[in-house]
Amino acid sequence: MKIESLQELFIDELKDLYSAENQIIKALPKMIKNSNSDELRSAFEEHLEQTKGHVERLDQVFQELDATGRGKKCKGMEGLLEEGKELMEEDVEPEVLDAGLISAAQRVEHYEIAAYGTVRTYAELLGMDNAVKLLQETLDEEKETDRKLTSIAESVNVEAAEMAEEDEEDVA
Amino acid sequence: MKIESLQELFIDELKDLYSAENQIIKALPKMIKNSNSDELRSAFEEHLEQTKGHVERLDQVFQELDATGRGKKCKGMEGLLEEGKELMEEDVEPEVLDAGLISAAQRVEHYEIAAYGTVRTYAELLGMDNAVKLLQETLDEEKETDRKLTSIAESVNVEAAEMAEEDEEDVA
Repeated sequence: MKIESLQELFIDELKDLYSAENQIIKALPKMIKNSNSDELRSAFEEHLEQTKGHVERLDQVFQELDATGRGKKCKGMEGLLEEGKELMEEDVEPEVLDAGLISAAQRVEHYEIAAYGTVRTYAELLGMDNAVKLLQETLDEEKETDRKLTSIAESVNVEAAEMAEEDEEDVA
Repeated sequence: MKIESLQELFIDELKDLYSAENQIIKALPKMIKNSNSDELRSAFEEHLEQTKGHVERLDQVFQELDATGRGKKCKGMEGLLEEGKELMEEDVEPEVLDAGLISAAQRVEHYEIAAYGTVRTYAELLGMDNAVKLLQETLDEEKETDRKLTSIAESVNVEAAEMAEEDEEDVA
């Protein structure tokens, strides 16, 4: 496929995001199941519902472009989610696993923050006002999720750090 | 391997970053070669030198932990770089390719911003002041690179958008 214009690159990157969001929808239930902290679990549950809305917004943008989201696999998201999956398959203390899940989830959020920031800017340059509005809404939600994860990490990381101290006390 | 403490998770994530930075060092020369804009090319060249410094800082943190950076492949970065590679292998107009390269590079930067933010916080909780300083320095440089790419994108994206208009004029 030849990419000759910003609009074609825009569609290519939207397809990438469409695949990324759908991969996240498939991955989140396992992260929810593996969360030890109630606060983290409910943040992931809320984000799963939000993510379904992000796919709907992308569908609306594709309609406007007379294009479809299908036909591309986002390898970036595949690798990011693979990292989280590997961690869940290892033998990790529950409090430490929570810290690791937040870390994996924040990489995912930052991927989306970069990607939605880019496509929102392309939409502006292409004069697609409705797409700008939709993509900005999702971008705001991704940033808000990232902030919420940072806030949950404050308590989760301290609990994970305390695990180490307890171990040291056991040894002493 | 069992991960029982925040320090073990810290080392695991540092190994991940060590692999990520080394993959970036291998990938950047091709991105430099494929850059059409002089400004973008020189930003990538500067970032290549910076990235070598990031590896050195990680080496210092590993020394303090009596650990090594080797032995892990960062699958997240592998996927992100694969996306950029795919784009360079496609048939893309040079101005549009620049926009796409910036987009790919900003996903890479955001991965690192998330990852360095996390390990810097872990180092704080573990009371490793020197590691905090080193990781914060790299984090600041990644954020600065992301800002610089956003600024370069302002002109590059407009050029890419003009390519489409020229095509339309040709057709008209």
